[in-house]
Amino acid sequence: MLRYAVVGSGAVGGFYGIRLAAAGADVQFLVRRGAAVVRDRGLTLTSPEGTLHLPSVRVAGSWDQLEPVDVLLVAVKATANPDVLANLAGRTGLVAPGGAVLLVQNGIGVEGSYAATGLPVLGGLAFLCSQRRDPAHIAHLDFGALTIGAHTTGEAPGGITPLMEAIAADLAAARTEAHLDPDLVRARWRKLMWNVPFNPLSVILDATTDLLMADPDTVALVTRVMQEVAAAAAAEGRELPGTLIADLLAATAAMTPYATSMKLDADAGRPLEVDVMLAEPLRRAARTGVPMPTVAALHDQVAFLDRRARAVGAAGQSAAV
Amino acid sequence: MLRYAVVGSGAVGGFYGIRLAAAGADVQFLVRRGAAVVRDRGLTLTSPEGTLHLPSVRVAGSWDQLEPVDVLLVAVKATANPDVLANLAGRTGLVAPGGAVLLVQNGIGVEGSYAATGLPVLGGLAFLCSQRRDPAHIAHLDFGALTIGAHTTGEAPGGITPLMEAIAADLAAARTEAHLDPDLVRARWRKLMWNVPFNPLSVILDATTDLLMADPDTVALVTRVMQEVAAAAAAEGRELPGTLIADLLAATAAMTPYATSMKLDADAGRPLEVDVMLAEPLRRAARTGVPMPTVAALHDQVAFLDRRARAVGAAGQSAAV
Repeated sequence: MLRYAVVGSGAVGGFYGIRLAAAGADVQFLVRRGAAVVRDRGLTLTSPEGTLHLPSVRVAGSWDQLEPVDVLLVAVKATANPDVLANLAGRTGLVAPGGAVLLVQNGIGVEGSYAATGLPVLGGLAFLCSQRRDPAHIAHLDFGALTIGAHTTGEAPGGITPLMEAIAADLAAARTEAHLDPDLVRARWRKLMWNVPFNPLSVILDATTDLLMADPDTVALVTRVMQEVAAAAAAEGRELPGTLIADLLAATAAMTPYATSMKLDADAGRPLEVDVMLAEPLRRAARTGVPMPTVAALHDQVAFLDRRARAVGAAGQSAAV
Repeated sequence: MLRYAVVGSGAVGGFYGIRLAAAGADVQFLVRRGAAVVRDRGLTLTSPEGTLHLPSVRVAGSWDQLEPVDVLLVAVKATANPDVLANLAGRTGLVAPGGAVLLVQNGIGVEGSYAATGLPVLGGLAFLCSQRRDPAHIAHLDFGALTIGAHTTGEAPGGITPLMEAIAADLAAARTEAHLDPDLVRARWRKLMWNVPFNPLSVILDATTDLLMADPDTVALVTRVMQEVAAAAAAEGRELPGTLIADLLAATAAMTPYATSMKLDADAGRPLEVDVMLAEPLRRAARTGVPMPTVAALHDQVAFLDRRARAVGAAGQSAAV
């Protein structure tokens, strides 16, 4: 198995890291707040699929304590990227030759800044519902699949690399669903089609997915947002299936009531991923000349709410390292 | 002076009714909840321009107690129109020959249903900040001008009628600013240019006007909404001045922090004026082929919030009669 280090040992990074470590992979966890707790109690992943407890884990309390790995799994909120990039800049030796950064994060257009370090970069899209209850306890609620694609300069489809295959094999050994996508940008647009409507609306309207799907007006609004995202994706040569919108709406209506990641961030007083989830899609659509007026409205609203929450000085702490 | 009856003796109807009565006009107030209180205590209008107290007022506790007038001043929330229309249907004799219904209300397209009773209808646009503190006490906070225009079948500009002149003279005697507009529909679009962005956004984002004007993203959003309203107005032959958007933004930024009428309704658990303020402008724009995607987003959001608030069973009472 490959060697891993998890940067951002929260709901997402903790889930995949614990699964991989429990399957026997060498996994280091970077934990900057609560390192002593994790060293003392290990890590626990509660899950409807069965609880995993790792009594002893490799904990790095700082970047300096990390040792070289094949996969640097970065699973921080996008708002913490500047911090991670600053730390990574002088430590590219952390990723062994043939290895890569695996950036498991929402949004689009985030891999480029990591690739600027000179390291190979893979993008990861987590279809996962989980929460960090405390530094030593991750609660898995639902789903869990990880889609992985390769970043390339110019964003042409990167195909499927041997490293991606190796990661998928490790995840399979960890009984965790993995999908390898030859076109990372298309995969990101596809995921945005759900995230762009539901994340901001759940914050703006203080609503879980079931409430948004139960009202004809919000269903219509979500649908128009999805249509705008589909048009922006198509303008980048990433045509999404014509049935995708109807499929996503039906799947969401059938889902357990669900608070989006942005809603969880807002409720916890954390900064919101406005830039990668809304502003960057808008910038891309502007470049290709695709109008996104509905997305722009949602962007402006959550940007306002995010700025106000921070101005109020909500003392929420970021879940990022 | 003309004879008046005020239907909807709340923040708006109470303000104009008390001003007119204090100036000597014969004014009946229809008060269905709190009639005994008003008979007992009279009506008081507190105001930075000086307090008016009417120790004895003509109170009608029901429609049957109203006597004929020249002007039936209807100042209920748009959500109460069905109730008023049902009561008015069998009582058109309430309005003496040469008189009219004066519908002081937000939105657009509301006069037609009143005109269907066969009575002449004037539309009134209140630029007024006031609150009903209790059935006997209206608090005037700021502004107060009333713009009046004549409704016509087909919505052609109705010009300025003798009745409008007489009402304006009464308001002048009551030291209340009146503007007579020969084109009611244009006046309504002009007022919508402010109401359509600020009313729903104040509810959706739980924000007063000062907060919305202090954030670059909400200013941009408000501006786009105003542009859509201007385009829809122009498509109905009601070109608004090119400087109006900049003027409205500057005036709003300079205003005292202000909760819109829709925000006051939402906070009090009252139904929101979604239909006349958002749905009807959208229907009109659809007929003239003008896209209003940003307005549509705001519509869908407040429609959701309004429906949810009523489903929750918020026991707020309508300020309407």
